[in-house]
Amino acid sequence: MTPTHNFNAGPAVMPQIVLERARDELLNYGESGMSVMEMSHRSALFEDIVNRAEADLRSVLTIPANYKVLFLQGGATLQFSMIPMNFLPSGASADFILTGTWANAAIKEAEKVGRTRVAATAEKEHFDHVFAQAELDLDPKAAYLHFTANETIHGVEWPADSEPTPPPGVALVCDVSSDIASRPLNISKYALLYAGAQKNLGPSGVTLVIIRDDLLERVPPKLPVMMDYKHLAEHKSLYNTPPTFSIYVVGLVLGWLKELGGVKEIARRNEAKAKLIYDVIDGSGGFYRGHARADSRSRMNATFHLGSEDLEKKFIKESEGQGMVGLKGHRLVGGLRASLYNALPSDSAAALAQFMSEFQRKNG
Amino acid sequence: MTPTHNFNAGPAVMPQIVLERARDELLNYGESGMSVMEMSHRSALFEDIVNRAEADLRSVLTIPANYKVLFLQGGATLQFSMIPMNFLPSGASADFILTGTWANAAIKEAEKVGRTRVAATAEKEHFDHVFAQAELDLDPKAAYLHFTANETIHGVEWPADSEPTPPPGVALVCDVSSDIASRPLNISKYALLYAGAQKNLGPSGVTLVIIRDDLLERVPPKLPVMMDYKHLAEHKSLYNTPPTFSIYVVGLVLGWLKELGGVKEIARRNEAKAKLIYDVIDGSGGFYRGHARADSRSRMNATFHLGSEDLEKKFIKESEGQGMVGLKGHRLVGGLRASLYNALPSDSAAALAQFMSEFQRKNG
Repeated sequence: MTPTHNFNAGPAVMPQIVLERARDELLNYGESGMSVMEMSHRSALFEDIVNRAEADLRSVLTIPANYKVLFLQGGATLQFSMIPMNFLPSGASADFILTGTWANAAIKEAEKVGRTRVAATAEKEHFDHVFAQAELDLDPKAAYLHFTANETIHGVEWPADSEPTPPPGVALVCDVSSDIASRPLNISKYALLYAGAQKNLGPSGVTLVIIRDDLLERVPPKLPVMMDYKHLAEHKSLYNTPPTFSIYVVGLVLGWLKELGGVKEIARRNEAKAKLIYDVIDGSGGFYRGHARADSRSRMNATFHLGSEDLEKKFIKESEGQGMVGLKGHRLVGGLRASLYNALPSDSAAALAQFMSEFQRKNG
Repeated sequence: MTPTHNFNAGPAVMPQIVLERARDELLNYGESGMSVMEMSHRSALFEDIVNRAEADLRSVLTIPANYKVLFLQGGATLQFSMIPMNFLPSGASADFILTGTWANAAIKEAEKVGRTRVAATAEKEHFDHVFAQAELDLDPKAAYLHFTANETIHGVEWPADSEPTPPPGVALVCDVSSDIASRPLNISKYALLYAGAQKNLGPSGVTLVIIRDDLLERVPPKLPVMMDYKHLAEHKSLYNTPPTFSIYVVGLVLGWLKELGGVKEIARRNEAKAKLIYDVIDGSGGFYRGHARADSRSRMNATFHLGSEDLEKKFIKESEGQGMVGLKGHRLVGGLRASLYNALPSDSAAALAQFMSEFQRKNG
């Protein structure tokens, strides 16, 4: 079998060693005689799994003690609704930075709940960039300021340490679904961070929320119990049956990440992988055209076009012949997209870069 | 290692053959070179998995063509909120049959949304029974009538073909979380059925909803997108990233169930397993005292007490020595609980029955 290079945008490639461990323990976890899937979520065995996953996440991301960590369900999309239901009271307004499809989806759900305001939009530029602080038109009275750390479809990402600074007293809320744990992050700047696990942290079906304690006091009464952050935090992700096996696999991924050197080391690897691809694009004399502005390029999803759709189809077909999957761009942007998440081996990025050079040589 | 007899109330025992298959395919599904966890939910490979799971569920449960099948997240608890948000408009009232903890949890969530009414309650009898049709005080104008097919904590279950008949035009809604696919069911009597998968269908993290088409027309505008049945049905469970691996395992469980003879055969096995336990209780001369009234006994969760808490502790300790896990009753009822879901082997039920007889002989 040709080795597979998995460039899927999510669910995405996972560390081989994690899959092997999950396989080896699938029928008998720690001599329990049971699969993790067969354990009560109230058992000491599973509590150990979820507590270890939380401890490793806290360690890997350096999460301060005044933040709660929740393992929830419903993906980032349910968070798009939960955040305004919890934190956008009647009469208030929330600020959004519109950088692409995912920021827009968050706005659409918030609009159903309350007033929203766009503090900056890159729509006219086909979402090819993020923003500098001076470009933001911020509401000093906003209930919160929401932004999307990385836009998987357009391939734009806020550079390291460039996150927007909200006006004093305004909570900063961020969708980190597609670049969580890909580099160090100053958690204390944020009031709430959320992420579907299926890019950098594990399988789909589990959503991480990191929330500062004081926000929980703002939660209004009578929310659906599964959408009430305060209630969920009080029950430590175990109010109802959580997605136990998915949380277990997330724990394995976090263990792998910790072992290899944490976010500092993975950031170095991610930079290097992305550089391989963008260097080919930049050195191609226009044969490959990146979608994102150079200062807003995503390290997680490199989006680019070729001169024609026919050539793009040929690229995809031939890359598939080399065992490369997931390179077709999202229909909204077209072209090609290479997702380069944490678990993508450097070898896969190198193989793609080499294929791209070769493809240009033959077709340029 | 002692063989494990897994009586967990959920997540619960799974078919060994399903776990073996999941293990064998964990790193490489169908020569794709990828784990199911690593596949795009938009790929042909995964669409085949989810379509096959749906087709097998339709076949196993004989679901009519005018019903949609959804694979959602959030467990039955999110359904407790979604149902009234979708189907309990302002000014209307919904009827509930209160048979235990889970029926009560459904009421509590519905009360946050609109008016509720209790058509019958077994609270005074410590939830030891379900109801005959004549005992129900039904509202002919109710938005819907909700009941819980099986109460896992109290161990009461509606007998086969005894489900309540709502007044003409009133939608029948049922929580089948803990006995779905355990016996034949006349789906066409119901407007909506829902179930967390983690008892009879697979791992936790996926929720099944079976909903009659005409109900979708009642869905109000501006619901959170993840709580809008109409929207979710239009996108065939793939609006956002579904819990792909959990759906895959549910598909394997359904394949196993179909292969062994479907709900008719599993019903026969479940009856036989439950009879083993209840026969020991009934023949124990009061040493074992069942919680549920004989006509309301659950085939899925047998709940019973011994003469003292000390004796119950001894029972649990000694049963654990025989590799039996999960026999401690829920704190609300105390005593013992043996969960006997589809995947529990008959041998495990027989081993428990034998242990119970032996334990009585030594301690009676």
